[in-house]
Amino acid sequence: MYAVEVRDHIMIAHSFKGEMFGPAQQLHGATFVVDVAFFRENLSANDVVVDIGRATDTLKEILKPLNYKNLDELPQFKGKQTTTETLSHYVFDQMVDALKNGVLGEESNGVSRIRVTLHESHVARAWFEGPVERA
Amino acid sequence: MYAVEVRDHIMIAHSFKGEMFGPAQQLHGATFVVDVAFFRENLSANDVVVDIGRATDTLKEILKPLNYKNLDELPQFKGKQTTTETLSHYVFDQMVDALKNGVLGEESNGVSRIRVTLHESHVARAWFEGPVERA
Amino acid sequence: MYAVEVRDHIMIAHSFKGEMFGPAQQLHGATFVVDVAFFRENLSANDVVVDIGRATDTLKEILKPLNYKNLDELPQFKGKQTTTETLSHYVFDQMVDALKNGVLGEESNGVSRIRVTLHESHVARAWFEGPVERA
Amino acid sequence: MYAVEVRDHIMIAHSFKGEMFGPAQQLHGATFVVDVAFFRENLSANDVVVDIGRATDTLKEILKPLNYKNLDELPQFKGKQTTTETLSHYVFDQMVDALKNGVLGEESNGVSRIRVTLHESHVARAWFEGPVERA
Amino acid sequence: MYAVEVRDHIMIAHSFKGEMFGPAQQLHGATFVVDVAFFRENLSANDVVVDIGRATDTLKEILKPLNYKNLDELPQFKGKQTTTETLSHYVFDQMVDALKNGVLGEESNGVSRIRVTLHESHVARAWFEGPVERA
Amino acid sequence: MYAVEVRDHIMIAHSFKGEMFGPAQQLHGATFVVDVAFFRENLSANDVVVDIGRATDTLKEILKPLNYKNLDELPQFKGKQTTTETLSHYVFDQMVDALKNGVLGEESNGVSRIRVTLHESHVARAWFEGPVERA
Repeated sequence: MYAVEVRDHIMIAHSFKGEMFGPAQQLHGATFVVDVAFFRENLSANDVVVDIGRATDTLKEILKPLNYKNLDELPQFKGKQTTTETLSHYVFDQMVDALKNGVLGEESNGVSRIRVTLHESHVARAWFEGPVERA
Repeated sequence: MYAVEVRDHIMIAHSFKGEMFGPAQQLHGATFVVDVAFFRENLSANDVVVDIGRATDTLKEILKPLNYKNLDELPQFKGKQTTTETLSHYVFDQMVDALKNGVLGEESNGVSRIRVTLHESHVARAWFEGPVERA
Repeated sequence: MYAVEVRDHIMIAHSFKGEMFGPAQQLHGATFVVDVAFFRENLSANDVVVDIGRATDTLKEILKPLNYKNLDELPQFKGKQTTTETLSHYVFDQMVDALKNGVLGEESNGVSRIRVTLHESHVARAWFEGPVERA
Repeated sequence: MYAVEVRDHIMIAHSFKGEMFGPAQQLHGATFVVDVAFFRENLSANDVVVDIGRATDTLKEILKPLNYKNLDELPQFKGKQTTTETLSHYVFDQMVDALKNGVLGEESNGVSRIRVTLHESHVARAWFEGPVERA
Repeated sequence: MYAVEVRDHIMIAHSFKGEMFGPAQQLHGATFVVDVAFFRENLSANDVVVDIGRATDTLKEILKPLNYKNLDELPQFKGKQTTTETLSHYVFDQMVDALKNGVLGEESNGVSRIRVTLHESHVARAWFEGPVERA
Repeated sequence: MYAVEVRDHIMIAHSFKGEMFGPAQQLHGATFVVDVAFFRENLSANDVVVDIGRATDTLKEILKPLNYKNLDELPQFKGKQTTTETLSHYVFDQMVDALKNGVLGEESNGVSRIRVTLHESHVARAWFEGPVERA
């Protein structure tokens, strides 16, 4: 299995609902350093997993609507908890959509799995990994 | 698959038995930066993999009896090699027990796998990953 | 010149005032990984720069009122910009006060300079360094 | 599953063929920080995954013919693209051969999988992971 | 003294002249992760060291003519050794010029020193630091 | 001012004397990742700060007598505390001697300062920096 992983980051505000979150129920924030890994069994005709330039640009586009925002006020997260876990899944879903819509180009056609990791500090991170299901 | 990973560290002395270990047969030591990753298919009701505060506290509790110690003198390692590999498994076993005993709280009930990584330097690390088997 | 540096982190929300800040004028947030370095010419009687346990605890105490908060609502930052630069200076001032008030203990009496670094992402950080002026 | 991972690096020149590569079609270069992870279900008699000294030495030997070279001029890469992906596979193949030929010693007999990661910058990396197939 | 540091990277080919360089006399290459730190005594009216967006953009512009190139063929390095040390100085000179020419904007007027660090691997780096001399 | 920094590491056991050290009075250990930075105003005839190969080899030689040892039993540390601070100074002294004795070769003749940093974990490090005084 081959993989390629690219990195970007966002700086956001948010808060959580539920006693379990303790002080994180207050409005606070985070820098999320975001890694997206693309997996596939065999390489493309050009011997790559993805066009790394397109993968990087697509990640930036996906993160843009979140960057420098208070996630509590964004419609796509209304009524939802924006934990590091759910945000990992959110970026995963967006990247799968981009992949299916051809935004990453022909080179990425064989990508079969994606993993999105959000590093929230030097001592904690979360990720979501799943298959890219095609019709 | 979702995951959350937390980090702590210990500073210990130890030695190995067996020619294969060369100079590491002498009493020496290590800083182990310890990462514990918790895996599960679906998130808890609060949209997390684990209560990250409890996970961090539990890791600290597990590491405490080892920290600032000579592992050669601890009863739990008597007659055993404390390689980075076996220590990874030791921390894994302790964390699985804590999980089963409810130390990590209700949020962690769905955790199905754990991976424990011990970084011994900037150029070497070991880990153990396995399922959380429930009765 | 000797130095010892310790690390902790905070997760905060804030916003900036002024066109120059572009999208950062919106309410957003950051994880700041905070390094505090203590400098001195000669070591203490116990051959240390500071009691590293006390230094770490003091840093945690200084950061606590900021952690999981919206800095825009804290009285100590009223009418001020909480840029990475000014926050570095803020933590510096708090640490100098703690040092002068004996919070770091006798071991730290000879500390003559402090540097506070705030890492805001994997690609940007700021710091403030200055002398510890004693009466 | 246990794993041990060791690290080394190379500094090489190369170029790619194909419009998709954009400016990387020009002769340029890279520092590849190379991590090799060895996986196995159970530890050796000495409680290790591999003899870490031999693993490190073998990695250095494998990388030596590439280090400080222009990969475009090496016979082993003639007519091939030396993408980070294909180089990961190349190092994987070399390490599997070394393993089968006993270069890593008896301690490594139980290794069942290998993963080779090449970090090409602070924001991008690729890896290849596969089984060690024995006759 | 305040500082702000930003990061980018380049991937280049080059070679050195002189027996001292051993195998590095051959055409090889490097990824240089480039950090530029800006220093000043007092902050701007907006409480920053520099406009971090402009600083990042300017660094990218300075690195662009080198990125994905064989430095041996660039006119600006003709007859010169492109060691990590001299490249640090080169980027420093370019950044000082940009600063003097107003490319970094009014916010950066008080910058009095710059340091440019080039990380060539996980085990080696070089830097050049000097004053910004204004007429 | 130019600088070049190289990295290696050691794994040692030791203990401290004095109540201030708390649990670190017990025999424990550490991995020290060791960075040595060499500073000079102008580069050598070959445009380098030091011959980086020699610098790396010399650091390895200096660390060798400490690596895989219990520092409490080494004659050079008899009656001394082997804190991270004093070990930084010890490596500094050894490197200055090597430099004066020509071990680093002609390229290093202009080195005027050295800084030795010992990273003891992901959250703590110490360093010693001083001039290279020549007769």
